[in-house]
Amino acid sequence: MEKLFVEKEIKYIGDQLRPHWIYENFHILGDAIVAFIGEVDVKLDEMVDIEDVINNEPIYSKSMLNFIIEQFDIDLTAMVLAQRLFISIIKEVLEGYGVAVLRKGDDLFYDGRKLSVSIATKSITSCLIHTGLNIIKEGAPISASDLSEMGIKNIKEFANRIMDKYRQEFESVKLATYKVRGRA
Amino acid sequence: MEKLFVEKEIKYIGDQLRPHWIYENFHILGDAIVAFIGEVDVKLDEMVDIEDVINNEPIYSKSMLNFIIEQFDIDLTAMVLAQRLFISIIKEVLEGYGVAVLRKGDDLFYDGRKLSVSIATKSITSCLIHTGLNIIKEGAPISASDLSEMGIKNIKEFANRIMDKYRQEFESVKLATYKVRGRA
Amino acid sequence: MEKLFVEKEIKYIGDQLRPHWIYENFHILGDAIVAFIGEVDVKLDEMVDIEDVINNEPIYSKSMLNFIIEQFDIDLTAMVLAQRLFISIIKEVLEGYGVAVLRKGDDLFYDGRKLSVSIATKSITSCLIHTGLNIIKEGAPISASDLSEMGIKNIKEFANRIMDKYRQEFESVKLATYKVRGRA
Amino acid sequence: MEKLFVEKEIKYIGDQLRPHWIYENFHILGDAIVAFIGEVDVKLDEMVDIEDVINNEPIYSKSMLNFIIEQFDIDLTAMVLAQRLFISIIKEVLEGYGVAVLRKGDDLFYDGRKLSVSIATKSITSCLIHTGLNIIKEGAPISASDLSEMGIKNIKEFANRIMDKYRQEFESVKLATYKVRGRA
Amino acid sequence: MEKLFVEKEIKYIGDQLRPHWIYENFHILGDAIVAFIGEVDVKLDEMVDIEDVINNEPIYSKSMLNFIIEQFDIDLTAMVLAQRLFISIIKEVLEGYGVAVLRKGDDLFYDGRKLSVSIATKSITSCLIHTGLNIIKEGAPISASDLSEMGIKNIKEFANRIMDKYRQEFESVKLATYKVRGRA
Amino acid sequence: MEKLFVEKEIKYIGDQLRPHWIYENFHILGDAIVAFIGEVDVKLDEMVDIEDVINNEPIYSKSMLNFIIEQFDIDLTAMVLAQRLFISIIKEVLEGYGVAVLRKGDDLFYDGRKLSVSIATKSITSCLIHTGLNIIKEGAPISASDLSEMGIKNIKEFANRIMDKYRQEFESVKLATYKVRGRA
Repeated sequence: MEKLFVEKEIKYIGDQLRPHWIYENFHILGDAIVAFIGEVDVKLDEMVDIEDVINNEPIYSKSMLNFIIEQFDIDLTAMVLAQRLFISIIKEVLEGYGVAVLRKGDDLFYDGRKLSVSIATKSITSCLIHTGLNIIKEGAPISASDLSEMGIKNIKEFANRIMDKYRQEFESVKLATYKVRGRA
Repeated sequence: MEKLFVEKEIKYIGDQLRPHWIYENFHILGDAIVAFIGEVDVKLDEMVDIEDVINNEPIYSKSMLNFIIEQFDIDLTAMVLAQRLFISIIKEVLEGYGVAVLRKGDDLFYDGRKLSVSIATKSITSCLIHTGLNIIKEGAPISASDLSEMGIKNIKEFANRIMDKYRQEFESVKLATYKVRGRA
Repeated sequence: MEKLFVEKEIKYIGDQLRPHWIYENFHILGDAIVAFIGEVDVKLDEMVDIEDVINNEPIYSKSMLNFIIEQFDIDLTAMVLAQRLFISIIKEVLEGYGVAVLRKGDDLFYDGRKLSVSIATKSITSCLIHTGLNIIKEGAPISASDLSEMGIKNIKEFANRIMDKYRQEFESVKLATYKVRGRA
Repeated sequence: MEKLFVEKEIKYIGDQLRPHWIYENFHILGDAIVAFIGEVDVKLDEMVDIEDVINNEPIYSKSMLNFIIEQFDIDLTAMVLAQRLFISIIKEVLEGYGVAVLRKGDDLFYDGRKLSVSIATKSITSCLIHTGLNIIKEGAPISASDLSEMGIKNIKEFANRIMDKYRQEFESVKLATYKVRGRA
Repeated sequence: MEKLFVEKEIKYIGDQLRPHWIYENFHILGDAIVAFIGEVDVKLDEMVDIEDVINNEPIYSKSMLNFIIEQFDIDLTAMVLAQRLFISIIKEVLEGYGVAVLRKGDDLFYDGRKLSVSIATKSITSCLIHTGLNIIKEGAPISASDLSEMGIKNIKEFANRIMDKYRQEFESVKLATYKVRGRA
Repeated sequence: MEKLFVEKEIKYIGDQLRPHWIYENFHILGDAIVAFIGEVDVKLDEMVDIEDVINNEPIYSKSMLNFIIEQFDIDLTAMVLAQRLFISIIKEVLEGYGVAVLRKGDDLFYDGRKLSVSIATKSITSCLIHTGLNIIKEGAPISASDLSEMGIKNIKEFANRIMDKYRQEFESVKLATYKVRGRA
């Protein structure tokens, strides 16, 4: 799995959560994780989370650290499990900064306030994850927390730690599937 | 997913990590998680982790809290991801007790000492996980930690919290696969 | 699997056979079966059955009892098998009313005249079935039979019997996959 | 799918429900359905139905019409659905003889008495079904019915009708998966 | 698998590489291979090969022998393997004409010059291959070779040999999956 | 995919075609291809090719170049396609030595005489291929050819060329599945 921290800001409007967005934009072919900073503004008709559509809850945040993951050869149940593990990894990396957060499913909470948005979905040829972490909470539509109040200032370094840990984890998950004897 | 805490002690020798061990012994059919306390003594020829076989590392612990999970309709990659998430959940439950541990893949460490063993495997019809947490560390072959030094005394309550959290997590994972629009 | 009999009439034009139509309209998440009464008017460009498109056979019926089933974690071959079983179940429920019909694949015939239309298809995240049974046969383009001539007057009760039997059947099918030993 | 009615009697003891039993004995390669007449005597340790093992219910019948089906490229959920459809087909063929039976899951009942046994399972490379219909009920361990009391005398012709209808049904199921447009 | 050589010329613009193009146009249902002669002019927005899109490489050839293959019950990895084998088969058929070519992945080279284009992709319900072989090389955008310089004049016979060999190969591949014992 | 040419001779008796034989013996975890030289003597009860068992055709050769391939995350149809492609690659490598052979399915013929044996099978967690090429033909039970009569003397170099080409091919196959847009 390749990784990339994109230096320029990108406004996330939801349509980036599509197959080959990474390949088309950054020429990374195959399993990949990309991070970038940018405003998040997902209108209802770009949302893949139909629960949010039903509840009429578009997503807005002035500045988020965004991750897009695309993986092939994986089904949606595994991808949602991978997403939950990815959220656990963010929690663990934050612990390395001395910050304690609470994970509930695919959400992270700091001081009872929501830090993150996340969704996993499936295309014809791959599965995809978007996760966003508030950098600055103003403008977010719900009671929110953000990375700046936790003292995370070097966002790039923080993002790279998360991406490296996820890549190692997924590599180790695959090795774990190779090393076991099946039980007849 | 059904759960059961088995009141009587069971010595875990590895052959319980087989399809339908739960069904045959506790008459729970389908996806299930079972916990029990007991000595753990897995000889090389019962091990499914071939890495341990190659390294000639049988498993022994005088008293462990053991979990056996059997799930159907899941492939091995998803099951290993579920196992990692299960280990994260144990970490999170320990945090609820005020105990901080470190997760590395499918291992938990307390004070730099290993608390757990875990493996996930596949049968013809299902996938299976065994996870053991030292209750008393004496006799374990490597530098170990245990639940008793963390002050976890009510093992049954601890086990039930873990099992409940895992069941809720997996239920929520499945719902997450149902609520998203695919991307053409 | 949840079930719902929708009290208000809905005109079925084919575009309801899409992923999450049930979730978006009735807020039932996951595997579900929904029944409703309504005119059926499926033009060629909404048809998923390409055989009918090739044969230039749009579907029209003035009033049908319609079923929409959406299931996740199932492939198309299994869904077509489930559809055939669903048609068998309708036949069996009709026998409970003292009415004998003949099943040929996914069609039901009464007195040699066609009672039903049915199709199963696949989306990126799920599989779907539509089945329609004529309530009043006038206006149907082929030699048809209908429920009213069989004396089925309480359509809601009839629909609920079918939906309950299908849900029980599918539940029992899953249990049957859990209870068997694989053969090495 | 090839079919074969085996002229000589074969005692069914359960171990015939294994991959390639048909290929090894009758040199039919690939998807196949075979019928034969014989005593049925399945001891607990040959049973794949663990529910029967738990309930200590071995199977015995002095003379049954047995079907073994092996299919490749199919998963266990689809195979259990196919089994239920196979049981529906037996019911429909019996209707052609003027005999009314009741289907409950994978069982058939005549006059409230059980006519059949059936199980579906999975091997590493295929799925398998065994279905047995009592020809003579004496010696069967439960309240039973049989084909002779229904006036079915030409067992071979009866078996061939069932096998032909199943083969046509499965062929038509596959065609139904090929003819539909997917829904994005 | 059915085959068809289409007598009339068809201009290939890329949109023929879609599910059921064969069924809708030639009324062949299920796995099929079709060959036709025609100009090839695939603009960037019809290309499924995103590598070519990124490299801004549309495809043009004045006259190609085109093959479209659609297969169901196959995943994309298997379909790409089948595509490579299909290219090997073209090479082998050319050897039967006394013509030596070099295969590199899904490309064929004659005298160091490229003879072919090929791509495999996936739809919701099937997988698809397009392969084109230059008949006349003029107008092709890269250094090219063609069938006419190899002395292949009866294109229909050549196409039929290839299609027959591929169908036999795939049939034999399926039989090979049925004849082997799994290893526990 | 890792590769290894084993310097010491190994007698191939068929039981090496099992999951993790490579991992247990050479400590290579995951997808791998291994080559070794040795006598081949596969008795009927170690054969996975039931066709050979039925035909009572054990395999014997005094000295063969053997390849064992184990791959995870692949189904049996894809593995048989990979096997055929592997055989094509051996043919292409031989062409590089100026030797022309004929491929029929998974067999290679030189001068009308058989050079190879090959089989692909499936375990609970992986798929496996064995391919053997006669080095010295004496003692082979059928009309055979061998590498020595083709002038292939440096068997290790020959084996490494084949293994390298297969690894590159499979890597390129996976990339080909990542680069294409799905067709809704």
